[in-house]
Amino acid sequence: MAHSPFVQALYPPDFARCYGCGVDNTHGHHLETRRDGASTVTRFTPQPYHTGASDFAYGGLIASMIDCHSAGSAAIFWMIANENWQGATVAPRFVTARLEVNYLKPTPLEPIELRSSAPELGERKVVVATELSVGKLVTATGRAVLVKVPDGNIGRIS
Amino acid sequence: MAHSPFVQALYPPDFARCYGCGVDNTHGHHLETRRDGASTVTRFTPQPYHTGASDFAYGGLIASMIDCHSAGSAAIFWMIANENWQGATVAPRFVTARLEVNYLKPTPLEPIELRSSAPELGERKVVVATELSVGKLVTATGRAVLVKVPDGNIGRIS
Repeated sequence: MAHSPFVQALYPPDFARCYGCGVDNTHGHHLETRRDGASTVTRFTPQPYHTGASDFAYGGLIASMIDCHSAGSAAIFWMIANENWQGATVAPRFVTARLEVNYLKPTPLEPIELRSSAPELGERKVVVATELSVGKLVTATGRAVLVKVPDGNIGRIS
Repeated sequence: MAHSPFVQALYPPDFARCYGCGVDNTHGHHLETRRDGASTVTRFTPQPYHTGASDFAYGGLIASMIDCHSAGSAAIFWMIANENWQGATVAPRFVTARLEVNYLKPTPLEPIELRSSAPELGERKVVVATELSVGKLVTATGRAVLVKVPDGNIGRIS
């Protein structure tokens, strides 16, 4: 596979079926996480039925976006640190150990942007900090602890 | 409306459209949260397309279930404390201020149970602690901070 502009296209088949971000999931959100300078970015426009209270996005969608975006971001930051981002054909796979979401304001059902940094970046553990916004309004923040799955261990992560 | 065995049936219309737990959402999960002694319980069976890595549930589904179940649980615990659970026709509405999820093990795509207590129960703020399990295996835990929406303020929570 040629180098792709979003990291989920580099996930191996076991991860390509994720409802949140798998390119092979016919029902899911198909989130696409890209490098943008020193940050990572994912953009998504909710459907009208993704409502929670009133005309705002339901909390589970916010958490789901932060989760998948954080896993993709961890892979990107790890690849940059290990100097194998350019021309990569397979991304490392990270799973979430802990997810924290602060709901600051209701999130309108409009185009949403998630933008992240990696305040901690280790060999096996990455912490990703995320701001989720609509226009210039930050409506939620997230912090996720991701752990790298050993190569070839995807089917045995239990 | 007569007393219902699950709290989401007592939500006012603005909350009945939630993708996670709204009875009026034609696309969503329709989670149902019930009192069970001193606990609350929600049960849900994921679809095959709710996969994350391999054949396990995606993290966003876990977070989404804990979020909606916690909001419903907060309403139940609050109503019990305020002695208006029996015969209630409308439940108070809680929104999530903060959500924490610890992913302990992969969650199989099998019937899932969420069971909660309320370690903090105030007039406007409730903290809900949740164990999410498949069979006897606890695969995730959650902690959510919920805030009660003032009556009549649902459309103005921004």
